Amino acid sequence: MGEGKKQVGVLGLGRMGAALAGALLGAGHDVVVWNRSPLKAGPLVDRGARLAATPAEAASADVVLSCLSTYDIQQPVLEAASPKVLVNLTSGTPAEARSAAAWASSAGIDYVDGVIMAVPQGIGTAQSRILYGGSPTAFSAQREVLSVLGEPVFLGEDAGLAALYDLALLGIMWSTMAGYLQALALVGTEGVAPAAFTPMALSWLSAVGGFLPGIGAQVASGEYATDVSALDINAAGLGLLVETSRAQGIDASVPAAVRELFDRAVASGHGAHAIASVIEEIR
Amino acid sequence: MGEGKKQVGVLGLGRMGAALAGALLGAGHDVVVWNRSPLKAGPLVDRGARLAATPAEAASADVVLSCLSTYDIQQPVLEAASPKVLVNLTSGTPAEARSAAAWASSAGIDYVDGVIMAVPQGIGTAQSRILYGGSPTAFSAQREVLSVLGEPVFLGEDAGLAALYDLALLGIMWSTMAGYLQALALVGTEGVAPAAFTPMALSWLSAVGGFLPGIGAQVASGEYATDVSALDINAAGLGLLVETSRAQGIDASVPAAVRELFDRAVASGHGAHAIASVIEEIR
Ligand SMILES: NC(=O)c1ccc[n+]([C@@H]2O[C@H](COP(=O)([O-])OP(=O)(O)OC[C@H]3O[C@@H](n4cnc5c(N)ncnc54)[C@H](OP(=O)(O)O)[C@@H]3O)[C@@H](O)[C@H]2O)c1
Ligand SMILES: NC(=O)c1ccc[n+]([C@@H]2O[C@H](COP(=O)([O-])OP(=O)(O)OC[C@H]3O[C@@H](n4cnc5c(N)ncnc54)[C@H](OP(=O)(O)O)[C@@H]3O)[C@@H](O)[C@H]2O)c1
Repeated sequence: MGEGKKQVGVLGLGRMGAALAGALLGAGHDVVVWNRSPLKAGPLVDRGARLAATPAEAASADVVLSCLSTYDIQQPVLEAASPKVLVNLTSGTPAEARSAAAWASSAGIDYVDGVIMAVPQGIGTAQSRILYGGSPTAFSAQREVLSVLGEPVFLGEDAGLAALYDLALLGIMWSTMAGYLQALALVGTEGVAPAAFTPMALSWLSAVGGFLPGIGAQVASGEYATDVSALDINAAGLGLLVETSRAQGIDASVPAAVRELFDRAVASGHGAHAIASVIEEIR
Repeated sequence: MGEGKKQVGVLGLGRMGAALAGALLGAGHDVVVWNRSPLKAGPLVDRGARLAATPAEAASADVVLSCLSTYDIQQPVLEAASPKVLVNLTSGTPAEARSAAAWASSAGIDYVDGVIMAVPQGIGTAQSRILYGGSPTAFSAQREVLSVLGEPVFLGEDAGLAALYDLALLGIMWSTMAGYLQALALVGTEGVAPAAFTPMALSWLSAVGGFLPGIGAQVASGEYATDVSALDINAAGLGLLVETSRAQGIDASVPAAVRELFDRAVASGHGAHAIASVIEEIR
């Protein structure tokens, strides 16, 4: 255990929890782990972690990170653990995070809610960013430990904010991945392999990223005039995508849902407006 | 008109057609334009373009680019024009492109089908890429002219291939934009402004891009084992996104469609597999 290093408890050694514990060990922290299936602790114990027999044993550490499947699964574990300082890295809704924060407060636990914008393999690398909300003092006190896992970003005292950002960002990921899989399936109907298509998809996705700030600015201002591309021509294009997907014999349910949303915005009078105007149909 | 520069006809001066004609003028080509509403030619004529009174007049050029709303709108214009060499940049389906190619062949027209992966403002910049399919000899002969508009990529003799790639790539864009607008609406329910959220969305989107080649490789191999993130946990997360969107009072139709697709893949036995396995439900 390095100079000034903390004792860190980790509850949950799934894909993500094991990656968190591994990164903390790599940084020289004293790590005590607990998992329902203790066998999963083997590789971490080989690297110097201590295996706790109960959540409470792991929770005697200076700070406890929790990373389980869901809040429902986590809550009884937390109640058994009763840590001093808790950084909750289990994913859920803002409402779940806020109710966990309220429970923690009533139990005298300093609570920070975090969401991990990385895959387990990215933990501890420059590709990892973790968003936090909750107790600013607990966050400041743990910032150094948390920096081991990924770039920490503190969003504010509202413990539900990180979960809100998380769902919003993951929603972008799931939509983008659904679009990519739809694209692979579509070009696949004509024998185009993923390796041939993906480089083009990547450079196009980076161009699409370049369009987003302009869309965001239009959403912020509510001014939807465009000299770029009108919604009606994009809605028509979505129609062609749905039609072609079906003609090629593949599922079109996700593009059909996007087309319906765009069509509704056209029907509301946004046909000559920018794509940004679609937000009027969402909110 | 520069040394060795070609005479290029442009049919259609909408947002995109005007950008194409402008870039060609900028490169010193002799440009003759036609548009249903001739007034739109004004700024181009000021820069040296010649305004044709009929499609046929513009079609006497060495090569003709066509960029109208749809194939249905375009076909009578092309029949009136009857060019020698036609580069069709109107968006449509592979079937439409193939039938335009068949018509062109029967009319003795050298035909190349292209799709523009750029917005009008990107034409003539490094951000513009244009995919082509069709006559390789016509493409080679026109490559220099076409390079003015954006990086040309030739996909093969199949005139429908560019349209197939186009729909696949645009589908990624529409999905990603729908995800981004959903995200803006969601964080907006708690007062988070687009300008605060978008930088995080952009760096996350670039991380998501980094996941795609791995997904593509899994699709290619059909091996869906994962040590990254299992489909069931992502399907559950989509459920939380839908639930939270509804709880915050916003539309959830697009995330609901993605969730249904993921749920179907889980029901087919892919819960412990990677997200890539969702393609089995699409194709
Ligand atoms: N993987 C990612 O890419 C990623 C990224 C960001 C956030 N996250 C979030 O991180 C959290 C964990 O994800 P993961 O990928 O590590 O999931 P995982 O590999 O499926 O691990 C699930 C963890 O929850 C435990 N668990 C499940 N049911 C339990 C129960 N009834 N009682 C006690 N423990 C139980 C498991 O224990 P056993 O080992 O005993 O089954 C394991 O420790 C989730 O909220 C996820 O959304 C994951
Ligand atoms: N804008 C983009 O970002 C973008 C990107 C890639 C591809 N594209 C594709 O490029 C094509 C043109 O898009 P755009 O953005 O330039 O659209 P636009 O601004 O709406 O222009 C439409 C063009 O079609 C003409 N047109 C419409 N109906 C007609 C009719 N009945 N008879 C004759 N001409 C008619 C218009 O002539 P008038 O001026 O007389 O109305 C105008 O020249 C579309 O296929 C689009 O999918 C656009």
